[in-house]
Amino acid sequence: MGDTFDRVETLRENPREDIPMAHRMKRFVEALQIRITRKLDALDDAASFQVDRWDREQGGGGITAVIEGGELFEKGGVNTSAVHGPLPERMVQEFDVEEAAPFYATGLSLVVHPRSPHVPTVHANFRYFALGDDLMNPKDQWFGGGADLTPYYPRLEDTKHFHRVWKEVCDRHDVADYAAFKQECDEYFYLPHRSEARGVGGIFYDYLRGDPEGLFFFTREAGRAFLESYLPIVKRRRDESYGRREKAYQRIRRGRYVEFNLVYDRGTKFGLESDGRTESILMSMPPEVQWRYDHTPAPDTPEADAQWYFTARNWLNLSEEEVPDSTV
Amino acid sequence: MGDTFDRVETLRENPREDIPMAHRMKRFVEALQIRITRKLDALDDAASFQVDRWDREQGGGGITAVIEGGELFEKGGVNTSAVHGPLPERMVQEFDVEEAAPFYATGLSLVVHPRSPHVPTVHANFRYFALGDDLMNPKDQWFGGGADLTPYYPRLEDTKHFHRVWKEVCDRHDVADYAAFKQECDEYFYLPHRSEARGVGGIFYDYLRGDPEGLFFFTREAGRAFLESYLPIVKRRRDESYGRREKAYQRIRRGRYVEFNLVYDRGTKFGLESDGRTESILMSMPPEVQWRYDHTPAPDTPEADAQWYFTARNWLNLSEEEVPDSTV
Repeated sequence: MGDTFDRVETLRENPREDIPMAHRMKRFVEALQIRITRKLDALDDAASFQVDRWDREQGGGGITAVIEGGELFEKGGVNTSAVHGPLPERMVQEFDVEEAAPFYATGLSLVVHPRSPHVPTVHANFRYFALGDDLMNPKDQWFGGGADLTPYYPRLEDTKHFHRVWKEVCDRHDVADYAAFKQECDEYFYLPHRSEARGVGGIFYDYLRGDPEGLFFFTREAGRAFLESYLPIVKRRRDESYGRREKAYQRIRRGRYVEFNLVYDRGTKFGLESDGRTESILMSMPPEVQWRYDHTPAPDTPEADAQWYFTARNWLNLSEEEVPDSTV
Repeated sequence: MGDTFDRVETLRENPREDIPMAHRMKRFVEALQIRITRKLDALDDAASFQVDRWDREQGGGGITAVIEGGELFEKGGVNTSAVHGPLPERMVQEFDVEEAAPFYATGLSLVVHPRSPHVPTVHANFRYFALGDDLMNPKDQWFGGGADLTPYYPRLEDTKHFHRVWKEVCDRHDVADYAAFKQECDEYFYLPHRSEARGVGGIFYDYLRGDPEGLFFFTREAGRAFLESYLPIVKRRRDESYGRREKAYQRIRRGRYVEFNLVYDRGTKFGLESDGRTESILMSMPPEVQWRYDHTPAPDTPEADAQWYFTARNWLNLSEEEVPDSTV
């Protein structure tokens, strides 16, 4: 399996111009799925990823890898899919194309819900979309993706680390713009009915068009940066102690995650409305969730301090003096 | 408070033709809220309803009554609201009116999530809507409402009782049609992505126009029938024993309730999108919820039997021989 990934690595050095981008991207995300699940797997002594393959009636399918009931990871999924066929009616409208052209979509999507409230939930995805009969010469093609962090007890150090990794990846590529992608992320992962951000953001981009080779290069570097963006935070926080209070607060915050995904997330809504595979789409749901009427953290608690982080800020410029004490 | 209700009772006998229907309906639902919360309150030894009043900036407001952490009722809310002002932009489109006419909307909405998996969750609402400057002579007005039952371990007896009460109410009124309202309920409370009903249905109706006096009479009888439709089921099931298995299954089923409310329910979506009071809208969320990847009940278990009920059926015509054994 490492071999598969290395083969993809080699493709970067020697772009195979006789292979459609769609297929190169599919190979990449499947190799990335293996790399990420193996690394996460190795961190959890109590559970490991279970893999389901599924087929899509109209063309293509996917690989769903799910971990549940782990010591470190209470629930998580790392999915890839590569689906194709005639463009569904809804997408014809969404993309404003004349008729149901053939499409090809492939990508990786992951969500990890750790058991400890001190370890943030993380989400990332990397996707490619092509329109037209000929995948070697698509009528239109674009990349999308991003990664964002949803801590329960946010810490400045973790937030900066996460953003720094994504900024560095963006800075290495002309096709990417950290400041713009961060802002798109802040705008996308926002709950208007709560007037709050889902978490501390990250990067988000969509409909990236231009030199496919450059965009694919960026996408691969971003995909590979995921573990670097997240694992140091996991390792730093996994042994911090917590009790019932912190778990209760985590369950309430997870409710906001559910609200976002079911009310606003385009991928979830689109998937459910277009007969996607429900269990793969909803693997993003947190394991245990709680709703309490009108829950508001008491003043001067770590939970009240956490709230400060659920407003978009320029994390990388903040000093320890500027953030709530309990988050340093 | 009983007095208030009795005053409203009297109005039925002597329709006050000098009072707009909007105000008569508001009084009715507020009196009904008191009647229902008192009855439910009396059944729970550990918790009681807490009342919040809120104002709407553009006009009107509401009364939110919530019970949490009860012995019998793990979470429940009985809300009333009466809001008015210029029609919000979204409603202008929805109702296909020419411009932002003044509107008046009032109603009661309730959801009860019992602690025991043997006691079903219930939802009901009764509402009135008027358009125009003059509430005595609205340009348009209609009633909507309904009640539906979401059991975890459905029982034929309970399902029949619930439907029988609603059928009897409908049968007493020319403006109501049980068969049509039941079908609307089945169609409305359906989760396409799960290919299943939210529960065992009930009645649902909207945009009921015609003789306002007759519609109001029906609405009041329906509102008052709620306790009769639900309390006998609560009393019959509340002492049945259960353990971790049944609670785990209840939490998973509650996940479907969340999915329905956040993805499909028009009231919830509309409320969130139109700056409604979030905590009042989301009081319908169950207290503790769980998502597990690809959960399917094992064959020949009560949980598999329950699944049989999540398809619309003519409950009132079913005999005990036709239903799964564990549900008789």
